[in-house]
Amino acid sequence: MNPADPADFVSPSYRHIGESLVRELGKLMADPEMVSLAGGYPGPELFDREGLRAAADEALREMPVAALQYGPTDGLPGLREQVARLLGARGTRCSAGDVLMTGGSQQGFDLLVRTLLRAGDAAVVERPTYTGPLRVLKVAGVRTLTVGVDAQGLDVDELGSMLRDPATPRPKLLYVVPTFANPSGATMTRARRLKLLALAVEHRFVVVEDDPYGQLRFEGGHEPQLAGLVDEVPGSRPWVVHLGSFSKIVAPGLRLGYAVAPPPIRAACLLAKQLDDISSPGFTQATVQRYVAAGRLEAHLPTIVAAYRERADAMREAIAAHLAGRVAFNLPQGGMFMWGRLVDGADTRALLPFAIERKVTFVPGDIYYADRPDGASMRLSFATPSPAQIREGIARIGRAIERMREPGATPPPWPTPAGPR
Amino acid sequence: MNPADPADFVSPSYRHIGESLVRELGKLMADPEMVSLAGGYPGPELFDREGLRAAADEALREMPVAALQYGPTDGLPGLREQVARLLGARGTRCSAGDVLMTGGSQQGFDLLVRTLLRAGDAAVVERPTYTGPLRVLKVAGVRTLTVGVDAQGLDVDELGSMLRDPATPRPKLLYVVPTFANPSGATMTRARRLKLLALAVEHRFVVVEDDPYGQLRFEGGHEPQLAGLVDEVPGSRPWVVHLGSFSKIVAPGLRLGYAVAPPPIRAACLLAKQLDDISSPGFTQATVQRYVAAGRLEAHLPTIVAAYRERADAMREAIAAHLAGRVAFNLPQGGMFMWGRLVDGADTRALLPFAIERKVTFVPGDIYYADRPDGASMRLSFATPSPAQIREGIARIGRAIERMREPGATPPPWPTPAGPR
Repeated sequence: MNPADPADFVSPSYRHIGESLVRELGKLMADPEMVSLAGGYPGPELFDREGLRAAADEALREMPVAALQYGPTDGLPGLREQVARLLGARGTRCSAGDVLMTGGSQQGFDLLVRTLLRAGDAAVVERPTYTGPLRVLKVAGVRTLTVGVDAQGLDVDELGSMLRDPATPRPKLLYVVPTFANPSGATMTRARRLKLLALAVEHRFVVVEDDPYGQLRFEGGHEPQLAGLVDEVPGSRPWVVHLGSFSKIVAPGLRLGYAVAPPPIRAACLLAKQLDDISSPGFTQATVQRYVAAGRLEAHLPTIVAAYRERADAMREAIAAHLAGRVAFNLPQGGMFMWGRLVDGADTRALLPFAIERKVTFVPGDIYYADRPDGASMRLSFATPSPAQIREGIARIGRAIERMREPGATPPPWPTPAGPR
Repeated sequence: MNPADPADFVSPSYRHIGESLVRELGKLMADPEMVSLAGGYPGPELFDREGLRAAADEALREMPVAALQYGPTDGLPGLREQVARLLGARGTRCSAGDVLMTGGSQQGFDLLVRTLLRAGDAAVVERPTYTGPLRVLKVAGVRTLTVGVDAQGLDVDELGSMLRDPATPRPKLLYVVPTFANPSGATMTRARRLKLLALAVEHRFVVVEDDPYGQLRFEGGHEPQLAGLVDEVPGSRPWVVHLGSFSKIVAPGLRLGYAVAPPPIRAACLLAKQLDDISSPGFTQATVQRYVAAGRLEAHLPTIVAAYRERADAMREAIAAHLAGRVAFNLPQGGMFMWGRLVDGADTRALLPFAIERKVTFVPGDIYYADRPDGASMRLSFATPSPAQIREGIARIGRAIERMREPGATPPPWPTPAGPR
């Protein structure tokens, strides 16, 4: 006999993963005084609303069937051509036939895990890494191995040692954000990228490169994508999957990203996508196709990058003024995040209620670890707030640290039910 | 050591399901002479392009952050309120908090299977049933049981007998399209609906009601949704999940549907959706919210229904003229499909090449069966072609049957690589 309550049908893996802490913190933004350095959201005033309105209007006028009818599961051919062109301009050779449009790069990763991994398989992530993939791997029952990150990104020597150790389970897949990583802000050097590809060939695992932030560089010179280096590492092309997204350079509300994958992997993901949602919406795809084809993306990108440069500068200066000697930061050359560590090793989970009391939020770093969490770490985002809000927010964190350090300070209550670790 | 080819990582369940035959047939439409009675696509000339352009423009002007920023995984609150209102107008009571927006009802079903079923579990579908869910169940390794369908839909007496048989594995879930089913066109009577809910309570399985076609009624009186009858069958509310879609009444290219589910099931699906694609696009949601709130859906629906009435009439008349005595049809009161059977029991797979040679396509019925396929069955859609095309297409099918019956007729070659069965 079946159980008396349909709740008992729910797979245990979906019962215990809880809400995302970042989303919990987002709810605090109902308070207009609150400064958020927590969310990884693009600044909404940076959306090219007029350009998108024009593109949507053109899409519905000039390609109504592509926009409104059922369409190919892999995406509109014209948009896939634009994606291939944009990647080519950044040094990554591919054709429209290699591209699969997805519901953000999140769906790209989910499709890969659905098709390539089974419970008990092993995968490698950065330590720390982005929570989205971590949660997907956890629900899938995948054994998640971790490799450390420093200012130059994933530590390929540590990875090499781990893979040479016969006690290490053979990973099928490694997930990495090589440029302006979330949360570390770190960017892998070219030498490390080449080494990573060589390790993939030697040890036969799929490298999943997630690159949502690469075009948000406000300092320094561009590094090639991993997918752009496959010709330099013999045998590496079949092992590299590239995930990209329009969320950070156009708008997240489009939920549009893409996977560039070797043929057998792309074919499997395409079938999984057909079973998931048939295709991404023609409506958003046609709009982005028009937006990109009209040159609007390339025209608007400098505005976004200039704003993030200004905000990152404000955060750097405020850190120097208010947090020097208290928090050590990895200062990135692009992207949306700064990654810090309380120098006295205190727990940023303990700091958070003091910060919220002073009307500022950040993300405690421990959520970004599959194992060996550094409880003293924290992620600050400079993408959403204004420079003035950033300065005020950093000053408030400084005051929160002071307050926490006072003898006998008891943490204020969390204003909402506490999020999961 | 891992395999030398990453193709070997692909899960076997994603290697062998093949392309959808309906999509294969769609490729034949490159020939402008071809009449398609195969695809289940809404007529594109029935899309309310002007209304959608106005709604998209309003959405981007007046709710740009909802349209363009990251948003709640369950969907925009204002759209969920509209969904609850629309369902209420059809007699199904629910609140915005019960609704989860999805990437079409396809994604709703996929989320249910991900969260509720594991390999080896049992589920029940109609015989015949829609291929999308069939493929999802197959890839998930679910044992699929079937129950017959007649002109009054799912045979609840057969279901009851099957469930009483101790040899039947306990199903966790039953998938049904109670109104204008795909492919059968059949509609369950109210008495059968009540019986189905009672069986769900007695035998403790989740009834998944998929209702994309219910508003496309061109004859007869509306039947209540299963979800609208839960108050009449004590204890049934926790066992009913309702899936709906804007694909057939607004446009499939929006890829927007919804699930109305009891709290524990909705919570699990919400988490699965967060891991899949974070949320459906705010851009399509805001557009549909504006479209519906402005009364455009209710204003435009009669135009769609009138067109389908005219097309169904044309098909009925053409069937009487060209197929009488050769094919027996279930003539529906709404929806998009007529379901037929070659009265001599000949195989519609064998007929298809003769039909394609005469420039008409239909879908052989065998693809809609999880077991015990009726090889003589066929699905005709009247949604996309014009009345003139429908008359011509049916006449061509009549000529194809004649040709096939000629002694010594050899089937012409399939113009593309044959689709899977």
